Amino acid sequence: MNIQADARIAALEDVATNLRIDSVRATTAAGSGHPTSCASAAELVAAVFFDAMRFDPDAPRDPASDRFVLSKGHAAPVLYAAWAAVGVVDRKDLEMLRQIDSDLEGHPTPRLPFVDVATGSLGQGLGAGLGLALGARLAGTDARVFVLLGDGEMAEGSVWEAAALAAHDNVDNLVAIVDVNALGQSGPTMLGHDVKAYQRRFAAFGWRATVVDGHDMAKVVEALRRARRSRGMPSAIIAQTIKGKGLEGVEGLPNWHGKPLPPDAATRVIAALESRLHHLPPPPISRPRRRAKRPPLVARETPKAAPPAGEVATREAYGEALVRVGEADPRVVALDGDVKNSTFAEKFMAKFPDRYFDAFIAEQNMVSTAAGLAAQGFVPFASSFACFLERGADQIRMAGISRSNIKLCGSHAGVSIGEDGPSQMALEDLALFRAIPEAVVFYPSDGVSTDACVQLAAAHRGVVYIRTTRMKTPAVYKDDEEFAIGGLKVVRATPTDRATVVAAGITLHEALAAHAELAARGINVRVIDLYCVKPVHGHALVEAAAATSMIMITVEDHYTQGGIGDAVAEAVGGSGVVLHRIAVREIPRSGPPRKLLARYGIDRAAIVAKVDELVTGIAPQTSAEELTGR
Amino acid sequence: MNIQADARIAALEDVATNLRIDSVRATTAAGSGHPTSCASAAELVAAVFFDAMRFDPDAPRDPASDRFVLSKGHAAPVLYAAWAAVGVVDRKDLEMLRQIDSDLEGHPTPRLPFVDVATGSLGQGLGAGLGLALGARLAGTDARVFVLLGDGEMAEGSVWEAAALAAHDNVDNLVAIVDVNALGQSGPTMLGHDVKAYQRRFAAFGWRATVVDGHDMAKVVEALRRARRSRGMPSAIIAQTIKGKGLEGVEGLPNWHGKPLPPDAATRVIAALESRLHHLPPPPISRPRRRAKRPPLVARETPKAAPPAGEVATREAYGEALVRVGEADPRVVALDGDVKNSTFAEKFMAKFPDRYFDAFIAEQNMVSTAAGLAAQGFVPFASSFACFLERGADQIRMAGISRSNIKLCGSHAGVSIGEDGPSQMALEDLALFRAIPEAVVFYPSDGVSTDACVQLAAAHRGVVYIRTTRMKTPAVYKDDEEFAIGGLKVVRATPTDRATVVAAGITLHEALAAHAELAARGINVRVIDLYCVKPVHGHALVEAAAATSMIMITVEDHYTQGGIGDAVAEAVGGSGVVLHRIAVREIPRSGPPRKLLARYGIDRAAIVAKVDELVTGIAPQTSAEELTGR
Repeated sequence: MNIQADARIAALEDVATNLRIDSVRATTAAGSGHPTSCASAAELVAAVFFDAMRFDPDAPRDPASDRFVLSKGHAAPVLYAAWAAVGVVDRKDLEMLRQIDSDLEGHPTPRLPFVDVATGSLGQGLGAGLGLALGARLAGTDARVFVLLGDGEMAEGSVWEAAALAAHDNVDNLVAIVDVNALGQSGPTMLGHDVKAYQRRFAAFGWRATVVDGHDMAKVVEALRRARRSRGMPSAIIAQTIKGKGLEGVEGLPNWHGKPLPPDAATRVIAALESRLHHLPPPPISRPRRRAKRPPLVARETPKAAPPAGEVATREAYGEALVRVGEADPRVVALDGDVKNSTFAEKFMAKFPDRYFDAFIAEQNMVSTAAGLAAQGFVPFASSFACFLERGADQIRMAGISRSNIKLCGSHAGVSIGEDGPSQMALEDLALFRAIPEAVVFYPSDGVSTDACVQLAAAHRGVVYIRTTRMKTPAVYKDDEEFAIGGLKVVRATPTDRATVVAAGITLHEALAAHAELAARGINVRVIDLYCVKPVHGHALVEAAAATSMIMITVEDHYTQGGIGDAVAEAVGGSGVVLHRIAVREIPRSGPPRKLLARYGIDRAAIVAKVDELVTGIAPQTSAEELTGR
Repeated sequence: MNIQADARIAALEDVATNLRIDSVRATTAAGSGHPTSCASAAELVAAVFFDAMRFDPDAPRDPASDRFVLSKGHAAPVLYAAWAAVGVVDRKDLEMLRQIDSDLEGHPTPRLPFVDVATGSLGQGLGAGLGLALGARLAGTDARVFVLLGDGEMAEGSVWEAAALAAHDNVDNLVAIVDVNALGQSGPTMLGHDVKAYQRRFAAFGWRATVVDGHDMAKVVEALRRARRSRGMPSAIIAQTIKGKGLEGVEGLPNWHGKPLPPDAATRVIAALESRLHHLPPPPISRPRRRAKRPPLVARETPKAAPPAGEVATREAYGEALVRVGEADPRVVALDGDVKNSTFAEKFMAKFPDRYFDAFIAEQNMVSTAAGLAAQGFVPFASSFACFLERGADQIRMAGISRSNIKLCGSHAGVSIGEDGPSQMALEDLALFRAIPEAVVFYPSDGVSTDACVQLAAAHRGVVYIRTTRMKTPAVYKDDEEFAIGGLKVVRATPTDRATVVAAGITLHEALAAHAELAARGINVRVIDLYCVKPVHGHALVEAAAATSMIMITVEDHYTQGGIGDAVAEAVGGSGVVLHRIAVREIPRSGPPRKLLARYGIDRAAIVAKVDELVTGIAPQTSAEELTGR
């Protein structure tokens, strides 16, 4: 028995040695990368893959498979080497690391089938792991999630957001492994090798925390097995390690972060590593024991009840729509950052308490946890005040790189929230979300369009943002109106329109009021509801502008930069449309909503004034449609 | 002695009672606000202002004055009431709370002379307090900083970032007070009234932490005095409180977050509170004992040594420039997020170790700490990879609202960083910073312009962002070239230019190469260096476009949204300029920098191709200058 156990440890040591060899070889071939960060983690990774984890190498994303998240993404070569050892990556491909046509990128991305979330922006892996663990639980599997963190990233608050919530939710299928090599990129970490301090912090946050010598394979294996068996709370393994361990000449030295070994040094190091091999085959991979009671991957039905009608706040319509898509699609889950009574995510919570996750006031972790849930096949909708979603801007950026299937709803957009003041007003959220590649950005104006946007979001694979409004607004659309990603609605049009006003959300109602006032004076304007701010239906915009002397005015409850004005400018850029913008141009104050809309010049009066200014002296085009060839 | 002490406690109790009365009255008058969040903190605030703090009510921002940061900004009415009790705010003005012409906004902003940083986005006060405390220390005062946090916001990771760094730096003039009223906005907090859990967490993070009954004035006073005397580590007071304490009928009840009392209930509550008054005058304010050895508020001299010349990475030129402004201006300090050897902030650290603060891998806190330092009169430059600054997006948003005098430098912008891959590439940072109101955004292309931007940043009061490039680039400008906020440079121009190419940073060099290639074929293009991306010199852009048949092309190492293309579109919107954009349009991969510039279509070849496409068939304007009336 001991001989067998010893042989298993020796075989795992061989795995670790090969991980080091492969990491050195790949980074030297690439001429860049982080071999010393791989070397400190070699025993940890070997033991996770070949002893602790139960997974199906052919179905790494099955909810029954244990998951491994490399939070310290710069150690990517050791991850790729591990999957090569498993047999999923061809070992000879490892030297394609960081080449432009290789999926073995500098930091891991889900272009690879065994990567759930992109890492490389530090401190995000534990939150994603928490989402994966919650997802496994919800899917009814006994799968566990192992997250390898660097010690440098323990300074990121997002790690502690995840730690707090994992303990609060008793997520006992989550294991954090901290590779405490004591060296950051530019110097020692805050805590150096004070592994007890990490242990105290995890314990204080409600975790079962153990300290282990991260290069003693028997101890690492034992700690991981204990963590795998652990029940009732999440487990942390604090591993004391040496940066560059096993790489002769750089072991434990500063100034070797992110530097490959020169070819001659690599040859010597690899020879020395090879001399330590016991030449044993790796232990066999352990397979999952219990398959998932996985929810169907497609929606069961389309929502049936009528969407919210009449005067309603779009934030409330969001909550109602969420219940409707939740009824139709069991994959839909929701998260909220302690404002569920403002975003109306509470409606979903009331209906589906098991599919609702309170993220408390920790928006970064809310986004990462949502990304983890998405990587288990769920369709998470996460909500907060729109301005507080900006707290998770970097997590949203990484979700974009991951092509995560997450939906974010930001309520309380713009100055129209009123008295709470600028800290609660999102006036730059559209700039944030427009700059997320492939993201879809919705900004509905009434109950029917909100309902449609939520349905479109649930059906679309990728990052979707929905911006909602605090105050109640009247109905614009009938129940059966159809909406689409990349669509817009021409809500007012005559053959004699003299300008096109493009608005969305709260400003659509201002534009409609301005339209009525102008029409009463005989001045017609076209009004467009740009409910989809990204992608923008550029052709329809140019067509409208062409019918109105190429004069177009955007109106938005957002700063001038990055929002609707920029979106329209991008879409009509090369067309000759003369674009004017009405937007918030200064830091606003507290005050009543209508007074703020007026003071910051985005209300009906501002639109009327701008139209008057632009069309004064310009004769109406009586046959505008003909001019554009329609 | 005991009688005196008892009388002092009774007087402080009267202060607390009046804070409650004023908070109820103001919120009921406003019809919105958070009286119950004020009531739980009344004893804490009364004791801080009238017993613990030493400050000059006429000079609350003097580095010798203790500071108070209301991290739980929604309790603004209790803050305003405290300053009314001090005599700085007229008590009758308290009922102007949340009115459009009052500076007593829904959440505190530095429009008020006693507010250092805007709060209201939770979890940011401790980091700002850390900056204020470090600033007081650097200014040579013995001032202390008291930060009042809510328990809900303890879920924000940024709080733990600040806690970790404060302990690491032994910031013993920082006192955190946590108002544990156990109720968040939408339900109980994660830890409820488990005050011991908060104590364990602070202790594990290296703080001296005490638990106290937050409504027992004598105990609160004692705890604050002990914290004020504490040396060697920061102090935390965990106060067990009741939400709505003292407000009959709502005390300790859920669903009373952010709701004013109805007028009749307010009248009853106020009457009950008044009946508890001992009718004692408040204790006198304690004044600071030691004045600051404050650095002069203006730069001593302009930098003298020559700026970086020849081929240099702008990130390295940033480090050199920082040393030069540091030599000239003693207010300049620097922070960096463990990438100081990449951003070259290490050059400043080497020269001015006392004025350099390592923020480790905690970008949110880095921004908040910088804002705190700025509020002590320093000029902080904080740097990281540009993409990781996005981690602090919400802190940057709040710095914008605060009009903080902070400078942020983001290195490693765009795909031109190469092999590290998309997680390390900032491709949306310009979108983030352009949407910060009043922010200045620089994107220099060589050593001389980088040096100028750093000098302009130091001299300008407000948020400034400087984007730098990883790779080396050749010199564009001579030493004596002059730059300005809102400026641009026409770096190539002839009377026969057929299009204007607007570039900045790395793409300026691509534009210059394209210019040379096109010129060799007889096609002249105008090339503009938009080194200042915000504010944009719109007039000069339109002038250039007018000289080149209104054809303009922007080229940027940034996504299409929110960057240079949008900035130029905003500036030339109403002018009829036909704008074409060259930008990164998909999620990039790892690879060599030049290959990435080519693959994502932002290199010289892409510019040449676009110019060819646009000018084909268009005859050159031989007298373009005349046409525009110059």
